[in-house]
Amino acid sequence: MPALRVGMVGYAFMGAAHSHAWHTAPRFFDLPLRPEPAVLCGRSEPSVRTAAEKLGWADWETDWKRLVARDDIDVIDICTPGDTHAEIAVAALDAGKHVLCEKPLANSVDEAELMAAAAERAAARGVRAAVGFNYRRLPALALARRLIAQGRLGTLHHVRAQYLQDWLVDPDFPLTWRLRREKAGSGALGDLGAHAVDLAQYLTGQQITGVSALLETLVPERPLPDAASGLSATGAGTARGRVTVDDAAAFTARFAGGAIGVFEATRFATGRKNALRIEVNGSLGSLAFDLESLNELAFYDRAEDPDTAAFRTILVTEPNHPYMSAWWPAGHLIGYEHSFTHQVKDFTEAIAAGEQPSPSFADGLRVQRVLDAVAASAADRSVWTTVPIDH
Amino acid sequence: MPALRVGMVGYAFMGAAHSHAWHTAPRFFDLPLRPEPAVLCGRSEPSVRTAAEKLGWADWETDWKRLVARDDIDVIDICTPGDTHAEIAVAALDAGKHVLCEKPLANSVDEAELMAAAAERAAARGVRAAVGFNYRRLPALALARRLIAQGRLGTLHHVRAQYLQDWLVDPDFPLTWRLRREKAGSGALGDLGAHAVDLAQYLTGQQITGVSALLETLVPERPLPDAASGLSATGAGTARGRVTVDDAAAFTARFAGGAIGVFEATRFATGRKNALRIEVNGSLGSLAFDLESLNELAFYDRAEDPDTAAFRTILVTEPNHPYMSAWWPAGHLIGYEHSFTHQVKDFTEAIAAGEQPSPSFADGLRVQRVLDAVAASAADRSVWTTVPIDH
Amino acid sequence: MPALRVGMVGYAFMGAAHSHAWHTAPRFFDLPLRPEPAVLCGRSEPSVRTAAEKLGWADWETDWKRLVARDDIDVIDICTPGDTHAEIAVAALDAGKHVLCEKPLANSVDEAELMAAAAERAAARGVRAAVGFNYRRLPALALARRLIAQGRLGTLHHVRAQYLQDWLVDPDFPLTWRLRREKAGSGALGDLGAHAVDLAQYLTGQQITGVSALLETLVPERPLPDAASGLSATGAGTARGRVTVDDAAAFTARFAGGAIGVFEATRFATGRKNALRIEVNGSLGSLAFDLESLNELAFYDRAEDPDTAAFRTILVTEPNHPYMSAWWPAGHLIGYEHSFTHQVKDFTEAIAAGEQPSPSFADGLRVQRVLDAVAASAADRSVWTTVPIDH
Amino acid sequence: MPALRVGMVGYAFMGAAHSHAWHTAPRFFDLPLRPEPAVLCGRSEPSVRTAAEKLGWADWETDWKRLVARDDIDVIDICTPGDTHAEIAVAALDAGKHVLCEKPLANSVDEAELMAAAAERAAARGVRAAVGFNYRRLPALALARRLIAQGRLGTLHHVRAQYLQDWLVDPDFPLTWRLRREKAGSGALGDLGAHAVDLAQYLTGQQITGVSALLETLVPERPLPDAASGLSATGAGTARGRVTVDDAAAFTARFAGGAIGVFEATRFATGRKNALRIEVNGSLGSLAFDLESLNELAFYDRAEDPDTAAFRTILVTEPNHPYMSAWWPAGHLIGYEHSFTHQVKDFTEAIAAGEQPSPSFADGLRVQRVLDAVAASAADRSVWTTVPIDH
Repeated sequence: MPALRVGMVGYAFMGAAHSHAWHTAPRFFDLPLRPEPAVLCGRSEPSVRTAAEKLGWADWETDWKRLVARDDIDVIDICTPGDTHAEIAVAALDAGKHVLCEKPLANSVDEAELMAAAAERAAARGVRAAVGFNYRRLPALALARRLIAQGRLGTLHHVRAQYLQDWLVDPDFPLTWRLRREKAGSGALGDLGAHAVDLAQYLTGQQITGVSALLETLVPERPLPDAASGLSATGAGTARGRVTVDDAAAFTARFAGGAIGVFEATRFATGRKNALRIEVNGSLGSLAFDLESLNELAFYDRAEDPDTAAFRTILVTEPNHPYMSAWWPAGHLIGYEHSFTHQVKDFTEAIAAGEQPSPSFADGLRVQRVLDAVAASAADRSVWTTVPIDH
Repeated sequence: MPALRVGMVGYAFMGAAHSHAWHTAPRFFDLPLRPEPAVLCGRSEPSVRTAAEKLGWADWETDWKRLVARDDIDVIDICTPGDTHAEIAVAALDAGKHVLCEKPLANSVDEAELMAAAAERAAARGVRAAVGFNYRRLPALALARRLIAQGRLGTLHHVRAQYLQDWLVDPDFPLTWRLRREKAGSGALGDLGAHAVDLAQYLTGQQITGVSALLETLVPERPLPDAASGLSATGAGTARGRVTVDDAAAFTARFAGGAIGVFEATRFATGRKNALRIEVNGSLGSLAFDLESLNELAFYDRAEDPDTAAFRTILVTEPNHPYMSAWWPAGHLIGYEHSFTHQVKDFTEAIAAGEQPSPSFADGLRVQRVLDAVAASAADRSVWTTVPIDH
Repeated sequence: MPALRVGMVGYAFMGAAHSHAWHTAPRFFDLPLRPEPAVLCGRSEPSVRTAAEKLGWADWETDWKRLVARDDIDVIDICTPGDTHAEIAVAALDAGKHVLCEKPLANSVDEAELMAAAAERAAARGVRAAVGFNYRRLPALALARRLIAQGRLGTLHHVRAQYLQDWLVDPDFPLTWRLRREKAGSGALGDLGAHAVDLAQYLTGQQITGVSALLETLVPERPLPDAASGLSATGAGTARGRVTVDDAAAFTARFAGGAIGVFEATRFATGRKNALRIEVNGSLGSLAFDLESLNELAFYDRAEDPDTAAFRTILVTEPNHPYMSAWWPAGHLIGYEHSFTHQVKDFTEAIAAGEQPSPSFADGLRVQRVLDAVAASAADRSVWTTVPIDH
Repeated sequence: MPALRVGMVGYAFMGAAHSHAWHTAPRFFDLPLRPEPAVLCGRSEPSVRTAAEKLGWADWETDWKRLVARDDIDVIDICTPGDTHAEIAVAALDAGKHVLCEKPLANSVDEAELMAAAAERAAARGVRAAVGFNYRRLPALALARRLIAQGRLGTLHHVRAQYLQDWLVDPDFPLTWRLRREKAGSGALGDLGAHAVDLAQYLTGQQITGVSALLETLVPERPLPDAASGLSATGAGTARGRVTVDDAAAFTARFAGGAIGVFEATRFATGRKNALRIEVNGSLGSLAFDLESLNELAFYDRAEDPDTAAFRTILVTEPNHPYMSAWWPAGHLIGYEHSFTHQVKDFTEAIAAGEQPSPSFADGLRVQRVLDAVAASAADRSVWTTVPIDH
């Protein structure tokens, strides 16, 4: 079986998740190509060496440009902060490497457009690009999409999506890179809201056409970290700096098919650890999901016998459910990282088949345009702001 | 024990609930006055006679003006559609009758202001007025208010409130009075959103200062009913008429204390029968409630031991919980109508004590002003619209 | 409409619940007879007078024999401890009064047999008797019975029933009458287990044929109360006495139709306030209920599409659900006491129709025989003990 | 870092789970030894070769005796049916190999005693043995044990444990090896009940001293499979054979510390896919767990403020929770197979530290003695049967 040799840039939280997925996917799924975790790339040599050994990568590099130039690499997997996505992805695609890029696709619509254009050029040469909205690969959400695509919900009326976390409630949590605009682009909006927007567009099969939004920074100053990382940091000193991204975002939206959306993303929902929730109500039924119970999908079918019509909680662990025949008998749960393993499976299969993997950079751009409209509306008295959509 | 003689106008859904409450409250609570369901008032003599007998009222009237003029009546209880509230309430208060008026207080801010002014005049003479936001009287929500007032949540950051029902999903549900602006004032906004807004202001102790909103009529035409009633109707013919109220409302909001709010009210959330949900996140903890599980209150306390910190689901049936010592042993649930029984208790006690019952007409006006700003924002591209508040 | 004049013996917890039901049933249901709360009976004149006034009874008596002798009474409603049931019930039935008797029917099989025989004699003269297993009247459990009777569960394989409370966990809770064998007959077994056994036989439509049991008194001595009552008591002094009933009961069982049962009843399940839970698994589906969420019924249907097969949580508040058309719109919950109101409705209708109300004294006897076998097995090394059943 | 070279016998369901764990543990945990998936062993050469390649094992063997004889192997991991455990485990221990053996330890107490004796002999030479009750390694259950060991539940009164599955409800499910006594020893009792018994003894820290039991085979004949496997099989023909194990087991129990237990294990609980549930009630608090929500632990603390005392649902994903600091940020779930990864971690650490890994073969024997007593009681009219315990 031919190999698919992977070079990965970045090895923090996302790097560990992707690394596990590259190792695990071929042992549970029958893949047409054999993924090889070949080269890990990071700026600090001692750190990247240690990480490569720990995470099971054969080699390492300290310069992503050298990585992209290597001819023994087929895929570049980008797990760095959003400000570097565009440069790496475009260079990799132009060098003929398939690219898997973490979300959000970019920190701005301009960058995202450059990336989508590069992906389109690359596709013409059989080179593939995908963005890492991994939650699409959770069996419960893939099942939700299947049910909606089958028409089980009828005409869609409502989408309500929330991504609630609480790791910034402590005002002494330090000012990590995720709280600085130049690195992260935005705060809860891009980190959490991007997932909610992508899911809403994916599940409904409809694009968002306009938004009215509100952004808020609830704790405007925080201690400067000694050593910044993503979600955690240590040794916060006494110096404080300005938070330049949003702590919370809230917006209403309309979809191309007539549905109304209500979105919220926050890092201040005390007690909610990772509550990405989405509910869709249609003329024939409803679906609801919560990432804190990621093996479950709630479903209501209006066509049922009135005595027993009810929301049911599907335990999405049956062999007929998406991805699940590869795992354990019914009733045995999977976890968060399985979404990445499924992402590797789908990405690998698409490359082998010469097809566009999903979600594409164009999908990533569609999310970016919504986030951009959200920011614009929030900056202008929440006024209704249209989102450019495809036709 | 002196009697409190009640005359009630209207005997549909709300009339049945109030009637039960007037009968039941004195048998479970030790009240300072003895409520007497004395006179029931409705326009059709045969109907009101039958209703009076069935619901246990001693006498009846067919003209609310005659009822207000009777000197053997102490309280006027108004259970009619919103377009009649102002006229009846102002007349009753000016005639020296205490008034309990169903929500929303009125169909417009202008009417609500007249009513609040009448209530203020009346109060000077010891005559009391209250508006029927009955959900404040559910033990779980009264406990929520108690916990917030005790500071258990710290600084409030987020309020998310939804009132989700689904009784309009069927496009052949007829055009009842609740779907006509001249009778109902608004649709989901005034009927459901009013409860959400009142609860949000009650629980937080903060007024809403501005909103950005979206209103939508998802099914614009419906069959004309033969005989219109509130939530149900029979014998819909072939003729159709225009729905002149909203089917769904969504808005973001800001509170005087700095919290952000997200609100949604709809009659199209398929499978959600009566899901009034409200969650409040503060710097020290969170609370969440769902009317479909009205005996429960979810609570998260950040101060807990990190091993066991978690959302707990309080079964609000202990004798130390608000109102509950009057009912059954712990673990025995109460239902929807108990909120009205508790409303009678509180209203009766306030009258006997010569105090202002809660919520006051001024509270009702505060809700009306928010609904008004919502409608204004929705009519003007969702632009941010400030709400006049008290200082 | 003819009246149904009621005399009620006892006015503690159960008396309050029954009293409310006699008042409320005719205002929500169209009954063929008009129940009249006529005479309340208790041994202490000042207490019974106060209670009669508070609970809304027209008259009172201090001797149940005088009550039974009155010719202006049609029904005797027995709400006293179990040791008095047999004497009152037999006398009342023989005097031609219909009888509604609280559960458990009696403190022994012998008494229960006398009562069942009296009920049979009375029935021949058109006089009716029913035992107050009120939970059968909860809409969720009545729906469960309907679904099983329709065959929706197929052949029944498993019944698991638990009645979990925790009010005896505190070792200083006093020695009330419910903890003394001569008054209460047994402890958790008769008070809680009786409900579980009745429900299991009612839902399955099958009698229990044998049991293997274990009884336990976890706290064998408790403070003597100054003034004993049922579930609560005050002023416990320093003297202690022996608990002569079980604190907890556990048993396995077999049903006539081949199902296996596991039962548990306890007053020591810390944190469980009123968790009467029952689950039935059959070849085609399953049902599950928990009294702490009494408006809900979980249902699993094996015939469903494998993608969406799941336990659903039916919110049993639709007009098509048992008893619910009399109450509020869908999604509006009912509470514990509604079970008593429904009991009054069914009892009154049966009397008017000249039919046997359900559950009959024979049903109560069937429960008593199971409890008796449980006690016998527990006393003899848990050995399998058959239960005499009807054929 | 020194290697820990593993030879694994069997590669079906359990083999895949163990294999994943040997690969994954060193990439998430800092282990003192480096596990190497070295040799996979199975009887059919083509099958074992394919499996070794797929599951990532360097070499293979077709005879477990040869595997045990190899001097380049440190650990024998036994994933075969129960009838082979004793022979392989004793041989491996005597050959100086550490042994990890799947549960139940054996098919009889006699075999289990031989194994425990071999483990004791081996321990004297520094050779370790553990039995694969993997659920002890779920963070939620490890946390439960921690809370009980800290005394947070006080004196334990009740244990109720159920392991509910439904994969035998279909009467045409074939007669696989798990339904034949000579292979599997027992049915639901040994497969499912063993987990429940081990957990109950582990969580409480108390041994079961006696039981009263009932076993039942609900479908006594099934189609013979063409090719038998564990939980699934294909091509069932028309011939039928006798099921020689139990379909369901139910028993009551007493613990050395005075608690009462109720246990149930079944493969006929329609709709319950993998519901291993255990609840422990103590004088100070309670805990409850359900494997279908394996990231959650319910906890009730009697010491809490009466207004907010409640069952809380701990989302056991915080870095302070057992095992979780190695995984993802709070709120990111783990799955079933993580229990095996944690098992590898603990087993590897114990070997490196020269300590007894947990659970030991002696623990496995303790479970076997309970299962034996259950079978004996069930065979003798459910009579109370004592279990020999350690002192």
